[in-house]
Amino acid sequence: MVAWVDFDKLESYKKLSSMTKKVDLTEVMAGEEGAARVAEYCMPMSSGLVYNYAAKQVDGEVLAALGELAEEAQLSEKFAALYNGEVINTGEKRLVLHQLCRGQLGDAVVADGVDKRAFYAEQQKRIAEFAAKVHAGEIVNEAGEKFTTVVQIGIGGSDLGPRAIYIALENWARKNGSLKMEAKFISNVDPDDAAAVLNSVDVAHSVFVLVSKSGTTLETLTNESFVKNALEAAGLDASRHMIAVTSETSPLAKNSGYLAAFFMDDYIGGRYSSSSAVGGAVLSLAFGPDVFARFLEGAAAEDRNAANKDLMKNPAMLDALIGVYERNFLGYQSTAVLPYSQALSRFPAHLQQLDMESNGKSVNRFAEPISYKTGPVIFGEPGTNGQHSFYQLLHQGTDIVPIQFIGFRKSQLETDVVIQDSTSQQKLCANVAAQIMAFACGKKDENPNKNFEGGRPSSIIAGDQLTPEAVGALLAHFENKVMFQGFVWNINSFDQEGVQLGKVLAKKVLAHQTDGALKAYSDLLHI
Amino acid sequence: MVAWVDFDKLESYKKLSSMTKKVDLTEVMAGEEGAARVAEYCMPMSSGLVYNYAAKQVDGEVLAALGELAEEAQLSEKFAALYNGEVINTGEKRLVLHQLCRGQLGDAVVADGVDKRAFYAEQQKRIAEFAAKVHAGEIVNEAGEKFTTVVQIGIGGSDLGPRAIYIALENWARKNGSLKMEAKFISNVDPDDAAAVLNSVDVAHSVFVLVSKSGTTLETLTNESFVKNALEAAGLDASRHMIAVTSETSPLAKNSGYLAAFFMDDYIGGRYSSSSAVGGAVLSLAFGPDVFARFLEGAAAEDRNAANKDLMKNPAMLDALIGVYERNFLGYQSTAVLPYSQALSRFPAHLQQLDMESNGKSVNRFAEPISYKTGPVIFGEPGTNGQHSFYQLLHQGTDIVPIQFIGFRKSQLETDVVIQDSTSQQKLCANVAAQIMAFACGKKDENPNKNFEGGRPSSIIAGDQLTPEAVGALLAHFENKVMFQGFVWNINSFDQEGVQLGKVLAKKVLAHQTDGALKAYSDLLHI
Repeated sequence: MVAWVDFDKLESYKKLSSMTKKVDLTEVMAGEEGAARVAEYCMPMSSGLVYNYAAKQVDGEVLAALGELAEEAQLSEKFAALYNGEVINTGEKRLVLHQLCRGQLGDAVVADGVDKRAFYAEQQKRIAEFAAKVHAGEIVNEAGEKFTTVVQIGIGGSDLGPRAIYIALENWARKNGSLKMEAKFISNVDPDDAAAVLNSVDVAHSVFVLVSKSGTTLETLTNESFVKNALEAAGLDASRHMIAVTSETSPLAKNSGYLAAFFMDDYIGGRYSSSSAVGGAVLSLAFGPDVFARFLEGAAAEDRNAANKDLMKNPAMLDALIGVYERNFLGYQSTAVLPYSQALSRFPAHLQQLDMESNGKSVNRFAEPISYKTGPVIFGEPGTNGQHSFYQLLHQGTDIVPIQFIGFRKSQLETDVVIQDSTSQQKLCANVAAQIMAFACGKKDENPNKNFEGGRPSSIIAGDQLTPEAVGALLAHFENKVMFQGFVWNINSFDQEGVQLGKVLAKKVLAHQTDGALKAYSDLLHI
Repeated sequence: MVAWVDFDKLESYKKLSSMTKKVDLTEVMAGEEGAARVAEYCMPMSSGLVYNYAAKQVDGEVLAALGELAEEAQLSEKFAALYNGEVINTGEKRLVLHQLCRGQLGDAVVADGVDKRAFYAEQQKRIAEFAAKVHAGEIVNEAGEKFTTVVQIGIGGSDLGPRAIYIALENWARKNGSLKMEAKFISNVDPDDAAAVLNSVDVAHSVFVLVSKSGTTLETLTNESFVKNALEAAGLDASRHMIAVTSETSPLAKNSGYLAAFFMDDYIGGRYSSSSAVGGAVLSLAFGPDVFARFLEGAAAEDRNAANKDLMKNPAMLDALIGVYERNFLGYQSTAVLPYSQALSRFPAHLQQLDMESNGKSVNRFAEPISYKTGPVIFGEPGTNGQHSFYQLLHQGTDIVPIQFIGFRKSQLETDVVIQDSTSQQKLCANVAAQIMAFACGKKDENPNKNFEGGRPSSIIAGDQLTPEAVGALLAHFENKVMFQGFVWNINSFDQEGVQLGKVLAKKVLAHQTDGALKAYSDLLHI
């Protein structure tokens, strides 16, 4: 049995709190010692990736203390409890099974009388068959013509992850002949979002994927109406253009208004749903089921790494613990995610949801207040764009912001030009290497305005190329990192009670049941 | 003469530091007192906007102290010094003249023997004439056909602002018959960025706008080569497809490789350049010069508000001072920008650059170290998307994150559906009103997991519709806010020395002149 204990009750918390020495990156990253450190503080991941933490403020002593924390907090045991089907989402009394969508790490998990691995695999198989028929022209529109576009209608976890993954692989798929259908996304309840997307597609040749676990998400149902209106206005039969991704008990299941329905369940949280049917339908239609299967393989490989009990062979756990060390003992409040890959332009937005919605909590998993910091603010943009934007503050601002770099040796399209004796891809990689060192070591200058203190920590996940496997591995790495941090903080990373109050108040506004300041704001906005 | 004094040397700093009482939003925003506060703490802006700060942790006493700070720090006098042409960017010994691109608030500013207002107006006029000829089919491609697409090649300030503004007005222009040409943007040195954009346009009917003040920005010149290769591969004459926006002394000026060149100068910083030729060329081509002129009018109107010496009639100055109060006296480290408008989806990324690159500094304007906090981390995504993403942390996380909401009564396309008795636009507005109150007042619950502390401050800029004038007003409001905060902190908001070290090190990597850890990282990335 695992013991769920508040972080500050652990011996290792006290030990880490009492460690006053801070690793000086300007020292340890200098000279040949620095080079040795880059080689040593580097851990293989799957899919050709490595996690390099040489430029983090850790040393043997800190790593040993983090290892003790991992043991004492029973991180491996808690992950095993999760993948073996214990009720880890205690607030909502649910299992947490997203890893089962891509593999099985432990025992068979049976819930509601069903083997859940078989259930998720069956949904993936049904999606693969459906997508193959669409691609083969066996499922067609009213005029007997092939569908060319897939439009996902969903919000939050039904949008950010699948959208980030689509953007991550669109160019790769184009290059490799795997772009079967273009994908678009409608999410915001702002009517200009749906209207603009609908203006940009040929609805007669579009399949719409409506994603809502409950079948009652207001934004999503509203946007579905937009789409149905557009289809009807074009003289089309909406039921021949729409599929649903939902739970088996939702009003969207077994509904003649949809060409097909694919299922998820309550054990897949929205922000963890990219590897379920939520990502599977749109991504299998866009890239073909084989590419989606490769993405799942990359995620499964990284889940296996996360299940390794040896901290020094478990990149997600180490990344998690270094993040906790930075948050609770070095006092840093935010983290920047900076992928040197335009294809990952929306990956930071996905991680922002994943991390902040999971770990932005002030009570432990028993709903008791806690008195230590939990999840940081997460933000980021792709490099080199960010260098010409907010890096000024990261280099010379008054707060230290830890950084998570991501970079690849090869571009996806492998189209390149040589300018001033180097390719664009070499320039891109040179910049990320340079930034790590500029942040870590800084540079003394007599003019304080040109002085760089250094001592600003970063890690990098480096890989060969952003392939489907690598995208899956990145996704799973960060899902598992966030999970391990939640275990350390003894919080429930799988509920989101903080989003409820706004919904309740918005309904009151729409029902004109308001008074006081809420009525005043409603009047200001002429609702 | 104005006195440039460190913030913590001011009497008003001491006074604000000694104010221990914190305004309790759960109290002041409750009941009819709350409604009165929403009405009272509301300041008109231009272009149909208002700045409402009722849900900020201020009261008469705090506002009075902030008023004293404005006086003592001579904020109005410093702005006057700026717009009258003093050397405000002391590090680089430059004037700061971006406001002159849209109006003249004070004396004629003559620099390098030229009346600068006349110079900027002349560039705008030249752009307007050029754009009109392109739209009229007087300037055409080799085949005598009209150009249909404009592609901006630039990075940082040459990208983020113009791109955010284009996205902000694309649907409005479509609706109002002003979308003359579609615009695309190439920024990242990642070769996949340029390749993907080039795959998505018809180069034979595209005009490319190369934007680089110095004419030497490596990313931009590299991407220009990409574009020239693509044009040549299509058998086209690159010089008939490219225009330059640059300084008069750059290698791109008076260069037969370009169809035309439009000029900016050293007095326009990159992140402040959207209202210069940097934004002017691409936006005038996309929307027509009249729409760009309306955008400038909105910005000019807001500049006039910023020049008002009465704090209570100066929204940018008040917004700035409340931000300083939150940063230095309430101890908040980051700020979320949350526009309830899909059209403003990239506006937070622009503000992230504007704010963090301007005020992420640790030395004062005389390059002396300072010992108080300066610019916060800025991040954001459009609502309602953000509600389903990171709002969990904003509501229930362990750090308080002040919020800047933006919202409009009407959508841009004015296409809407009624679901459950309300339109999408009403739902959008109801959500932002609800969120303000949920953050401010929270809600007690016996279950701490469902408990909302409240006391989380926000302001809202509310308007009728996101028109060209409103976009200009928003842009200028935030530019002026950032400027006033820089004045309070006594820093130079107009240089960016923090971006230099990374550039120097990247060049060393590309020249293979590295050792130690930098070489190790270069090897890791196979450069």
